[in-house]
Amino acid sequence: MDTQQMAAKIIVLETAALEEWNKGNPTPYLELLSPDITYFDPFLEKRKDGFESMRIFYEGLRGKGKVDRYEMIDPVVQLYGSVAVLTYQLHSYADGVDFPWNCTEVYREKEAGQWQIVHNHWSFIRPMDLEWLK
Amino acid sequence: MDTQQMAAKIIVLETAALEEWNKGNPTPYLELLSPDITYFDPFLEKRKDGFESMRIFYEGLRGKGKVDRYEMIDPVVQLYGSVAVLTYQLHSYADGVDFPWNCTEVYREKEAGQWQIVHNHWSFIRPMDLEWLK
Repeated sequence: MDTQQMAAKIIVLETAALEEWNKGNPTPYLELLSPDITYFDPFLEKRKDGFESMRIFYEGLRGKGKVDRYEMIDPVVQLYGSVAVLTYQLHSYADGVDFPWNCTEVYREKEAGQWQIVHNHWSFIRPMDLEWLK
Repeated sequence: MDTQQMAAKIIVLETAALEEWNKGNPTPYLELLSPDITYFDPFLEKRKDGFESMRIFYEGLRGKGKVDRYEMIDPVVQLYGSVAVLTYQLHSYADGVDFPWNCTEVYREKEAGQWQIVHNHWSFIRPMDLEWLK
Protein backbone atom coordinates (compact mmCIF):
# COMPACT_ATOMS: atom_id res chain seq x y z
CA MET A 1 0.00 0.00 0.00
CA ASP A 2 1.29 3.47 -0.77
CA THR A 3 1.11 6.34 1.71
CA GLN A 4 -2.19 7.65 0.41
CA GLN A 5 -3.84 4.22 0.58
CA MET A 6 -2.49 3.71 4.12
CA ALA A 7 -3.81 7.12 5.22
CA ALA A 8 -7.20 6.32 3.69
CA LYS A 9 -7.26 2.97 5.53
CA ILE A 10 -6.64 4.68 8.89
CA ILE A 11 -9.49 7.13 8.26
CA VAL A 12 -11.79 4.24 7.32
CA LEU A 13 -10.89 2.40 10.57
CA GLU A 14 -11.57 5.53 12.64
CA THR A 15 -14.81 6.40 10.85
CA ALA A 16 -16.20 2.88 11.23
CA ALA A 17 -15.48 2.89 14.99
CA LEU A 18 -16.82 6.43 15.38
CA GLU A 19 -20.10 5.61 13.63
CA GLU A 20 -20.74 2.72 16.02
CA TRP A 21 -19.70 4.89 18.98
CA ASN A 22 -22.31 7.41 17.85
CA LYS A 23 -24.95 4.68 18.22
CA GLY A 24 -23.78 4.00 21.79
CA ASN A 25 -21.64 1.01 20.79
CA PRO A 26 -18.00 1.21 22.02
CA THR A 27 -17.08 -2.30 20.78
CA PRO A 28 -15.29 -1.29 17.55
CA TYR A 29 -13.13 1.23 19.45
CA LEU A 30 -12.41 -1.37 22.14
CA GLU A 31 -11.34 -3.78 19.40
CA LEU A 32 -8.84 -1.18 18.13
CA LEU A 33 -7.28 -0.25 21.48
CA SER A 34 -3.74 -1.42 22.23
CA PRO A 35 -2.96 -3.01 25.63
CA ASP A 36 -0.76 0.05 26.37
CA ILE A 37 -3.34 2.68 25.27
CA THR A 38 -3.06 6.11 26.88
CA TYR A 39 -6.15 8.32 26.78
CA PHE A 40 -7.14 11.93 27.59
CA ASP A 41 -10.58 13.50 27.40
CA PRO A 42 -12.12 16.62 28.99
CA PHE A 43 -14.39 14.60 31.29
CA LEU A 44 -11.45 12.97 33.07
CA GLU A 45 -9.21 14.46 35.72
CA LYS A 46 -6.46 11.94 34.95
CA ARG A 47 -5.12 10.14 31.88
CA LYS A 48 -6.40 6.60 31.50
CA ASP A 49 -3.60 4.06 31.03
CA GLY A 50 -4.09 0.57 29.66
CA PHE A 51 -6.80 -1.44 27.95
CA GLU A 52 -8.57 -2.69 31.09
CA SER A 53 -9.05 0.84 32.37
CA MET A 54 -10.52 1.83 28.98
CA ARG A 55 -12.71 -1.27 28.78
CA ILE A 56 -14.35 -0.43 32.10
CA PHE A 57 -14.71 3.23 31.07
CA TYR A 58 -16.22 2.50 27.65
CA GLU A 59 -18.52 -0.26 28.91
CA GLY A 60 -19.89 2.30 31.37
CA LEU A 61 -20.79 4.50 28.39
CA ARG A 62 -22.40 1.74 26.33
CA GLY A 63 -25.82 2.87 25.12
CA LYS A 64 -25.16 6.48 26.21
CA GLY A 65 -24.09 9.65 24.47
CA LYS A 66 -25.80 8.83 21.21
CA VAL A 67 -24.94 11.22 18.39
CA ASP A 68 -27.54 12.05 15.74
CA ARG A 69 -25.15 13.47 13.16
CA TYR A 70 -21.43 14.14 12.88
CA GLU A 71 -18.95 15.91 10.67
CA MET A 72 -15.31 14.82 10.55
CA ILE A 73 -13.38 17.91 9.47
CA ASP A 74 -10.02 17.98 7.70
CA PRO A 75 -8.55 14.63 8.79
CA VAL A 76 -4.77 14.44 8.36
CA VAL A 77 -2.69 11.26 8.66
CA GLN A 78 1.04 11.56 9.33
CA LEU A 79 2.75 8.24 8.57
CA TYR A 80 6.12 7.23 10.09
CA GLY A 81 6.84 3.59 9.39
CA SER A 82 4.49 1.54 11.56
CA VAL A 83 2.98 4.59 13.29
CA ALA A 84 0.21 6.82 11.95
CA VAL A 85 -0.87 10.04 13.66
CA LEU A 86 -4.46 10.88 12.73
CA THR A 87 -5.79 14.33 13.66
CA TYR A 88 -9.16 15.84 12.86
CA GLN A 89 -11.90 18.05 14.21
CA LEU A 90 -15.31 16.58 14.87
CA HIS A 91 -18.72 18.12 15.30
CA SER A 92 -21.06 15.71 17.07
CA TYR A 93 -24.70 16.78 17.13
CA ALA A 94 -26.70 15.26 19.98
CA ASP A 95 -30.15 16.47 21.06
CA GLY A 96 -29.62 19.55 18.91
CA VAL A 97 -26.35 20.44 20.67
CA ASP A 98 -23.08 20.71 18.73
CA PHE A 99 -20.15 19.19 20.61
CA PRO A 100 -17.01 20.44 18.80
CA TRP A 101 -13.92 18.28 19.29
CA ASN A 102 -10.23 18.24 18.55
CA CYS A 103 -9.08 14.63 18.15
CA THR A 104 -5.67 12.98 18.09
CA GLU A 105 -5.46 9.24 17.43
CA VAL A 106 -2.06 7.56 17.29
CA TYR A 107 -2.30 4.24 15.46
CA ARG A 108 0.40 1.59 15.36
CA GLU A 109 0.65 -1.31 12.92
CA LYS A 110 1.35 -4.15 15.36
CA GLU A 111 1.39 -6.82 12.67
CA ALA A 112 1.04 -6.41 8.91
CA GLY A 113 -2.34 -4.79 8.33
CA GLN A 114 -3.33 -4.92 12.01
CA TRP A 115 -3.56 -1.36 13.34
CA GLN A 116 -4.14 -0.53 16.99
CA ILE A 117 -4.76 2.77 18.77
CA VAL A 118 -1.89 3.43 21.22
CA HIS A 119 -2.95 6.95 22.19
CA ASN A 120 -6.12 9.04 21.97
CA HIS A 121 -6.62 12.66 23.05
CA TRP A 122 -10.05 14.32 22.87
CA SER A 123 -10.59 17.96 23.77
CA PHE A 124 -13.27 20.55 23.14
CA ILE A 125 -12.68 23.26 20.55
CA ARG A 126 -13.12 26.33 22.66
CA PRO A 127 -11.16 29.47 21.82
CA MET A 128 -10.50 31.20 25.11
CA ASP A 129 -9.80 34.70 26.36
CA LEU A 130 -6.19 35.62 25.69
CA GLU A 131 -6.23 38.56 28.14
CA TRP A 132 -4.08 36.67 30.65
CA LEU A 133 -1.30 36.43 28.03
CA LYS A 134 -0.93 40.21 27.80
CA MET B 1 20.22 3.40 24.27
CA ASP B 2 17.67 1.13 25.89
CA THR B 3 13.99 1.99 26.11
CA GLN B 4 14.26 3.58 29.54
CA GLN B 5 17.17 5.79 28.48
CA MET B 6 15.31 6.81 25.31
CA ALA B 7 12.18 7.68 27.32
CA ALA B 8 14.29 9.72 29.75
CA LYS B 9 15.89 11.56 26.83
CA ILE B 10 12.47 12.55 25.42
CA ILE B 11 11.38 13.90 28.82
CA VAL B 12 14.62 15.88 29.10
CA LEU B 13 14.04 17.41 25.62
CA GLU B 14 10.47 18.36 26.53
CA THR B 15 11.36 19.75 29.96
CA ALA B 16 14.20 21.89 28.58
CA ALA B 17 11.88 23.42 25.93
CA LEU B 18 9.06 23.87 28.46
CA GLU B 19 11.29 25.71 30.94
CA GLU B 20 12.32 28.22 28.28
CA TRP B 21 8.70 28.54 27.12
CA ASN B 22 7.78 29.39 30.71
CA LYS B 23 10.19 32.34 30.49
CA GLY B 24 8.48 33.55 27.31
CA ASN B 25 11.08 31.99 25.00
CA PRO B 26 9.58 29.74 22.27
CA THR B 27 12.93 29.14 20.51
CA PRO B 28 13.69 25.68 21.95
CA TYR B 29 10.23 24.42 20.99
CA LEU B 30 10.61 25.93 17.52
CA GLU B 31 13.93 24.13 17.18
CA LEU B 32 12.18 20.83 17.94
CA LEU B 33 9.22 21.22 15.56
CA SER B 34 9.11 19.08 12.43
CA PRO B 35 8.28 20.72 9.06
CA ASP B 36 5.04 18.68 9.06
CA ILE B 37 4.03 19.51 12.66
CA THR B 38 0.31 19.38 13.45
CA TYR B 39 -0.87 21.28 16.53
CA PHE B 40 -4.04 21.67 18.62
CA ASP B 41 -4.59 23.93 21.60
CA PRO B 42 -7.74 25.30 23.29
CA PHE B 43 -7.08 28.86 22.12
CA LEU B 44 -7.32 27.91 18.44
CA GLU B 45 -10.43 27.25 16.39
CA LYS B 46 -8.43 25.22 13.86
CA ARG B 47 -5.45 22.88 13.90
CA LYS B 48 -2.18 24.50 12.91
CA ASP B 49 -0.36 22.60 10.15
CA GLY B 50 3.29 23.05 9.31
CA PHE B 51 6.34 24.74 10.78
CA GLU B 52 5.83 28.19 9.25
CA SER B 53 2.34 28.45 10.72
CA MET B 54 3.78 27.49 14.13
CA ARG B 55 6.73 29.86 13.81
CA ILE B 56 4.42 32.83 13.25
CA PHE B 57 2.16 31.68 16.11
CA TYR B 58 4.98 31.15 18.61
CA GLU B 59 6.85 34.33 17.66
CA GLY B 60 3.60 36.19 18.41
CA LEU B 61 3.72 34.74 21.94
CA ARG B 62 7.40 35.52 22.56
CA GLY B 63 7.78 37.31 25.88
CA LYS B 64 4.16 36.56 26.86
CA GLY B 65 2.44 33.98 29.04
CA LYS B 66 5.29 33.70 31.51
CA VAL B 67 4.87 30.91 34.03
CA ASP B 68 6.18 31.31 37.58
CA ARG B 69 6.13 27.64 38.52
CA TYR B 70 5.14 24.36 36.91
CA GLU B 71 4.59 20.73 37.78
CA MET B 72 4.91 18.02 35.13
CA ILE B 73 2.74 15.15 36.36
CA ASP B 74 3.16 11.46 35.51
CA PRO B 75 4.94 11.69 32.14
CA VAL B 76 4.71 8.48 30.10
CA VAL B 77 6.70 7.74 26.94
CA GLN B 78 5.44 5.05 24.55
CA LEU B 79 8.22 4.05 22.15
CA TYR B 80 7.58 2.46 18.75
CA GLY B 81 10.76 2.33 16.71
CA SER B 82 11.53 5.89 15.64
CA VAL B 83 8.36 7.35 17.19
CA ALA B 84 7.84 8.31 20.83
CA VAL B 85 4.47 9.36 22.23
CA LEU B 86 4.94 11.50 25.35
CA THR B 87 1.88 12.27 27.47
CA TYR B 88 1.72 14.18 30.75
CA GLN B 89 -0.34 16.57 32.76
CA LEU B 90 1.01 20.01 33.52
CA HIS B 91 0.11 22.60 36.11
CA SER B 92 1.40 26.02 35.07
CA TYR B 93 1.12 28.70 37.73
CA ALA B 94 1.01 32.24 36.35
CA ASP B 95 0.01 35.31 38.37
CA GLY B 96 -1.30 32.98 41.06
CA VAL B 97 -3.58 31.13 38.62
CA ASP B 98 -3.21 27.37 38.04
CA PHE B 99 -3.58 26.43 34.36
CA PRO B 100 -4.06 22.63 34.31
CA TRP B 101 -3.14 20.96 31.03
CA ASN B 102 -3.30 17.61 29.31
CA CYS B 103 -0.40 17.33 26.88
CA THR B 104 0.38 14.96 24.01
CA GLU B 105 3.69 15.30 22.20
CA VAL B 106 4.54 12.90 19.38
CA TYR B 107 8.28 12.85 18.76
CA ARG B 108 9.99 11.27 15.77
CA GLU B 109 13.68 10.38 15.47
CA LYS B 110 14.40 11.85 12.04
CA GLU B 111 18.08 10.97 12.11
CA ALA B 112 20.00 9.05 14.77
CA GLY B 113 19.65 11.05 17.97
CA GLN B 114 17.76 13.90 16.30
CA TRP B 115 14.20 13.99 17.63
CA GLN B 116 11.52 16.28 16.26
CA ILE B 117 7.95 16.99 17.40
CA VAL B 118 5.53 15.92 14.65
CA HIS B 119 2.34 16.48 16.65
CA ASN B 120 1.35 18.40 19.78
CA HIS B 121 -2.07 18.55 21.44
CA TRP B 122 -2.71 20.80 24.46
CA SER B 123 -6.04 20.88 26.27
CA PHE B 124 -7.31 22.05 29.63
CA ILE B 125 -8.06 19.52 32.32
CA ARG B 126 -11.67 20.28 33.01
CA PRO B 127 -14.01 17.54 34.13
CA MET B 128 -17.43 18.41 32.77
CA ASP B 129 -21.04 17.72 33.59
CA LEU B 130 -22.02 14.25 32.40
CA GLU B 131 -25.76 14.96 32.62
CA TRP B 132 -26.13 15.06 28.84
CA LEU B 133 -24.86 11.47 28.67
CA LYS B 134 -27.77 10.16 30.73
